[in-house]
Amino acid sequence: MSWLPIHPTSHFSLANIPFGIISRASAPSSPRPAIAIGENALDLLEFSNGGGFSASPDIQKHADVFSSATLNDFAALGRPFHRAVREYLQSVLAAETRYPELLRDNRQLRQKAILPLSEVENHLPLAIGDYTDFYAGKNHAHSVGVLFRGPANALQPNYMHLPVAYHGRASSVVVSGTAIRRPWGQILRDPNKTDPKVPVLAPSEKLDLELEMGMFICRENGLGSPVSVAEAEDFIFGYVLMNDWSARDLQAWEYVPLGPFTSKNLGTSISPWVVLADALEGAKGPGIPNETELLPYLQQDTDNNVLGIELEVEIISDKTAVCRTNSKNLLWSWPQMIAHHTISGCNLRPGDLFGSGTISGHEPGSEGCLLEKTQGGKIPLRLNTGEERTFLQDGDTLVIRGWCGENGAMVGFGEVSGTIQGALPLF
Amino acid sequence: MSWLPIHPTSHFSLANIPFGIISRASAPSSPRPAIAIGENALDLLEFSNGGGFSASPDIQKHADVFSSATLNDFAALGRPFHRAVREYLQSVLAAETRYPELLRDNRQLRQKAILPLSEVENHLPLAIGDYTDFYAGKNHAHSVGVLFRGPANALQPNYMHLPVAYHGRASSVVVSGTAIRRPWGQILRDPNKTDPKVPVLAPSEKLDLELEMGMFICRENGLGSPVSVAEAEDFIFGYVLMNDWSARDLQAWEYVPLGPFTSKNLGTSISPWVVLADALEGAKGPGIPNETELLPYLQQDTDNNVLGIELEVEIISDKTAVCRTNSKNLLWSWPQMIAHHTISGCNLRPGDLFGSGTISGHEPGSEGCLLEKTQGGKIPLRLNTGEERTFLQDGDTLVIRGWCGENGAMVGFGEVSGTIQGALPLF
Repeated sequence: MSWLPIHPTSHFSLANIPFGIISRASAPSSPRPAIAIGENALDLLEFSNGGGFSASPDIQKHADVFSSATLNDFAALGRPFHRAVREYLQSVLAAETRYPELLRDNRQLRQKAILPLSEVENHLPLAIGDYTDFYAGKNHAHSVGVLFRGPANALQPNYMHLPVAYHGRASSVVVSGTAIRRPWGQILRDPNKTDPKVPVLAPSEKLDLELEMGMFICRENGLGSPVSVAEAEDFIFGYVLMNDWSARDLQAWEYVPLGPFTSKNLGTSISPWVVLADALEGAKGPGIPNETELLPYLQQDTDNNVLGIELEVEIISDKTAVCRTNSKNLLWSWPQMIAHHTISGCNLRPGDLFGSGTISGHEPGSEGCLLEKTQGGKIPLRLNTGEERTFLQDGDTLVIRGWCGENGAMVGFGEVSGTIQGALPLF
Repeated sequence: MSWLPIHPTSHFSLANIPFGIISRASAPSSPRPAIAIGENALDLLEFSNGGGFSASPDIQKHADVFSSATLNDFAALGRPFHRAVREYLQSVLAAETRYPELLRDNRQLRQKAILPLSEVENHLPLAIGDYTDFYAGKNHAHSVGVLFRGPANALQPNYMHLPVAYHGRASSVVVSGTAIRRPWGQILRDPNKTDPKVPVLAPSEKLDLELEMGMFICRENGLGSPVSVAEAEDFIFGYVLMNDWSARDLQAWEYVPLGPFTSKNLGTSISPWVVLADALEGAKGPGIPNETELLPYLQQDTDNNVLGIELEVEIISDKTAVCRTNSKNLLWSWPQMIAHHTISGCNLRPGDLFGSGTISGHEPGSEGCLLEKTQGGKIPLRLNTGEERTFLQDGDTLVIRGWCGENGAMVGFGEVSGTIQGALPLF
């Protein structure tokens, strides 16, 4: 319980304490770190400047990280430091706080540092170095494989042996609320026609969402130094929700032989509040079972390594649920993804972002993208308004929400949203 | 002609003036911008602090970019500014300089600012945001396609219609001279064996080089705003040589369906001196002809858009030439690559790096990688020592050199080198 009023259904309970970057309407060019708590943000720059960390010399000596415009410096201080700050803020905000004078009974600092979430603008929480997108949602990979190659060859031979991934585009990762412009690109309208295959240039006609989880890295390994599964936990800063917008028609034409490119670099949306790794320790359980004997660098001591986050996707215009699933539908844990990413010596840096790949369940209604839900556009989704959708239309707003835990102690992500804008004329 | 002695075969003639980041042994943690001129570097921080830019108020007012540890801020000032600085430095260094008092006759500043290249350490010239690797070397793509799919399907149907590319790993781009550690990874030793296909974990046995050109971006476009071919020239800061080290055995197993990953993120080496776009205006000519009718956003006014840089690769241990070719063996120009990269709205930022893809000629001896040269390891390369190579061995040092122009006015890149270190034990 906090001395701040927090609704029992709030994603941002005292058990959470997620970190983000905010600015106020009065100072839009002055972004700074904050936490979300109930319906409010606590501005950590104001809190720090007002002596909020004075009861902890260990935190106080690194207080300069709270004057940065990104969380990279905070993240780079490592998981023990994140843990200390989270626990300190929990104790400051607790109803029976040991430090009432710091904030609860300090009206001036409360007025300066606490402000309604509705009045803040969120920014990207970290400056993203590299963005890697995995493909760990086995149900999704299987369904899409059936669509493209038939059931016998749905999964490639490597799929159960390694976390398949590709390098994504970091510059086009945007924070929730950023509009997404329908992309132009090359489209092969009739792929079954015999040669010559001639594409057209047009705005994408198969614009899709992808329901994913994202993970931020907080630690650096040297080039040439693989990270073991056991060490990998210390590399995890925290998690966000992700919508990896995808133009399926561009993708189908361009992706051989080197993978998706323009179909994926038009924008990737993430939720603004990073839920710390520590806040989700209790949400771990088994993922999708893997009967394959894994090579030693991917073996784990326990099967309880995959986060169980409830996930839902909604088309907002008429509140049509697109998907309801859970992030336990992943074949690989985040530490396994880190171990595989670095096995060849690749260096990670604080601020690197991993995506899980599209998360789908087994049952109808749990598909994490429209390609899968509509069977490649063959079975339209009927909206509550009676309209139909195969792929996204201009004006559609997509919202993804995610959470775990019980009322009163929920650890949630809030949401990531984005609205499709119509294509602009070229040049 | 310069008042500084410059050997006629120097890559760094007065016609060049390439930019980089250097430090001295006496101050290794103080990297700063410099140019290469003959056998020397001109330290631009010392030059600027010593009044070197005082004859140009337009440059002087932006002189803070010369105290940065990367060239990103300099690059972001745009091509007209790069041009002005290059021409100003050419006039300062010219034998008949208009400004003899600034440097030529200023012994104190000469001693501070001019130092032998042999005494400087080179650093990455720019902080790299995103790295994109194209596949524009048609001869290479065709040869590798024949190896993998036979002559009838060597090139995918999209190849002549768009510049195929994938997102690469920015963090593992390193400057020339950085050692490359042989990577561990998953290898399918017998790919023709029937199921089940079971990989092993081992150090790569097929480590390869890739001869490429690299290009740095200097300008930002907004997310959702494609860049036309005509505008694209203004986005080009300059060029480097690149060796995109590749583990072919890791690549063959992992690359379906999303493209190369651990096989390519073990390290990418670039030459330290960025040759400005302006310095290579005279090197443009036709590339590989493309009979395909291109979509409008890829059409150019002239065929003379591809740089003609002489390229050579050598295994240094016994000076065996691996390759001699020319960068005119590209199907696409850099402006076409920019136009395609942004057609879906992807935003570029100063410091982004593009790779051309492996450059090979048609004739024997012009193959830009060992995969192609040895026909997938079937026909060993005989070294001058009598030894053979199919792929790289520990201790091999690879050097790539590139240049254009005549003696006395050469515009060269110097070299990019890297030595293979043996794999370390895991964990």
